[in-house]
Amino acid sequence: MADLVQEFNDYRQKMNEKLMADNNKVIKRIFNLDTNAYMEGALSVPVKELLGLVASAVLRCDDCVKYHLETCYKEGLTKEQVMEAMSIATLVGGTIVIPHLRRAYEFWEALEQNNESV
Amino acid sequence: MADLVQEFNDYRQKMNEKLMADNNKVIKRIFNLDTNAYMEGALSVPVKELLGLVASAVLRCDDCVKYHLETCYKEGLTKEQVMEAMSIATLVGGTIVIPHLRRAYEFWEALEQNNESV
Amino acid sequence: MADLVQEFNDYRQKMNEKLMADNNKVIKRIFNLDTNAYMEGALSVPVKELLGLVASAVLRCDDCVKYHLETCYKEGLTKEQVMEAMSIATLVGGTIVIPHLRRAYEFWEALEQNNESV
Amino acid sequence: MADLVQEFNDYRQKMNEKLMADNNKVIKRIFNLDTNAYMEGALSVPVKELLGLVASAVLRCDDCVKYHLETCYKEGLTKEQVMEAMSIATLVGGTIVIPHLRRAYEFWEALEQNNESV
Amino acid sequence: MADLVQEFNDYRQKMNEKLMADNNKVIKRIFNLDTNAYMEGALSVPVKELLGLVASAVLRCDDCVKYHLETCYKEGLTKEQVMEAMSIATLVGGTIVIPHLRRAYEFWEALEQNNESV
Amino acid sequence: MADLVQEFNDYRQKMNEKLMADNNKVIKRIFNLDTNAYMEGALSVPVKELLGLVASAVLRCDDCVKYHLETCYKEGLTKEQVMEAMSIATLVGGTIVIPHLRRAYEFWEALEQNNESV
Repeated sequence: MADLVQEFNDYRQKMNEKLMADNNKVIKRIFNLDTNAYMEGALSVPVKELLGLVASAVLRCDDCVKYHLETCYKEGLTKEQVMEAMSIATLVGGTIVIPHLRRAYEFWEALEQNNESV
Repeated sequence: MADLVQEFNDYRQKMNEKLMADNNKVIKRIFNLDTNAYMEGALSVPVKELLGLVASAVLRCDDCVKYHLETCYKEGLTKEQVMEAMSIATLVGGTIVIPHLRRAYEFWEALEQNNESV
Repeated sequence: MADLVQEFNDYRQKMNEKLMADNNKVIKRIFNLDTNAYMEGALSVPVKELLGLVASAVLRCDDCVKYHLETCYKEGLTKEQVMEAMSIATLVGGTIVIPHLRRAYEFWEALEQNNESV
Repeated sequence: MADLVQEFNDYRQKMNEKLMADNNKVIKRIFNLDTNAYMEGALSVPVKELLGLVASAVLRCDDCVKYHLETCYKEGLTKEQVMEAMSIATLVGGTIVIPHLRRAYEFWEALEQNNESV
Repeated sequence: MADLVQEFNDYRQKMNEKLMADNNKVIKRIFNLDTNAYMEGALSVPVKELLGLVASAVLRCDDCVKYHLETCYKEGLTKEQVMEAMSIATLVGGTIVIPHLRRAYEFWEALEQNNESV
Repeated sequence: MADLVQEFNDYRQKMNEKLMADNNKVIKRIFNLDTNAYMEGALSVPVKELLGLVASAVLRCDDCVKYHLETCYKEGLTKEQVMEAMSIATLVGGTIVIPHLRRAYEFWEALEQNNESV
């Protein structure tokens, strides 16, 4: 199941590199903004990552959810905290979020397994 | 093609069990509400399932559409009735719903094939 | 409060007439399709109106909700039936639907008041 | 401008009371869940309110944004923190969020004015 | 009806100035990007404005639609061209777009009236 | 990678034929409208295809994006033009569009490779 993480990151990195090598300035600047927006400010990095996670979940973007789950994991957020954030997303976004919640849970388990096997 | 149904149900059940075993009360209660909302009341179960199907289709959630197609099928709704509901979803939700309509049609055929082979 | 209904219908009718007088064929045909889709077929008119209502509610379009509430009312659907449909919409679409539910409830009351005062 | 807050709260309370007086159990339970989900747990109340705010903003629900802005204000979150959360919402949700950002900013100013005048 | 344009522009400008005076860098940079993205490049300005219009219409943001209608008008696009773009938006986005189409048509008429009265 | 194009077209064609063979008139007429809406009118075919592409991208429908990328390619639009349209979609729709942008870029490369190998 750890492959789930690797596969996601490999494809993401490969295509991001292609998009950056392309010469569209607006896209490059959006990517750049995306990096800056989650840096520490008036809110801490973990809180910002949870905000990104919930925004991604209610907009039902599996890849965005996976990305923020991984950063949440790296920031040391617990499964309980992440699941509380996802529960708010499911309540606000409705039962339509549930299939994404299932895939998010599976991805979080893959992140945990990945780490145990190191 | 019958495997399409089995595969969907297996993954759904496996992950739902994990989510239920997790101790997030909000998620558990949303799941519980989800069961109650479709029970007979002022509206019949088949009508409620069609409402769930159309809500899922316009919000473009393939898994939710599959779930309601299966319950519609079990409730004895005909293909013609289900397609009329899907046509309203496609009209209200726009041509952006069409790819989901294709996958819904494929899933309905799998449900029918599944039954014939029993 | 009855004015809420009149005001909605007047603006809707005025602008629809302008759109029909304009010579865009695609828009005219979409309007035409919109009329046909809710006619009796394998599903009854009231069921189709409920489907239109729920689709409108989860997509959070107040004007579309108002339109279908009025047709539901004319088709003789009860407040209890309409509220059951709206409850499914709120569950599937999430708490984000609640502000629209409040306005829908207000509009339904206006429809009832309108009728009593006749 | 303070009336902006009062007007929002009055309508919201009036219609919520009507919805609660109505006998739809699913809606009542969703309202009840909505209260519980934002209570302190593995995440603090202010963080949960920010999550609700961002979820509301990317789903572009002005009333939901207003509600969470008010709770954020009551929880003592600063304008800078709230604006950081809104900036993430605008980045994730796109420029389509900007009109809602304008109205959110106006509402926050009304909350501040309201408080100063007490 | 010309006031419709003035009112929209006044509020938009007032709040944008407040947002720019606020010190959130991410929001400032998104605003800045928004200006650059519609400048002439491989695609002409009128085509880009039509793209912005259709994106706004299918995402059902009245204020964004108004903004792009005004820029389309200033770029010399005809009502017929704008209505063709809106017809594609209505087809792709579904009948849920129709209420926004009504308001867009009204705003375009206000733009035309505004100009005649100069 | 060229298989990406073939696979998409094969499934799309197979299911569209089934939907057309089915006797739901509303769906048939929506399909028919879909063909007519992109024909030359006050706007050229390439511009209309770009409008369809951007509408599909902000509504985050991968299959719809693929379909319009292919027609854009056949209409002779350059990669630079298509990427400018996609950059507007990403700005308007937010970073949530990025995963779809990655898949769109991959599909465009497949279209180019397909053509080179002929």
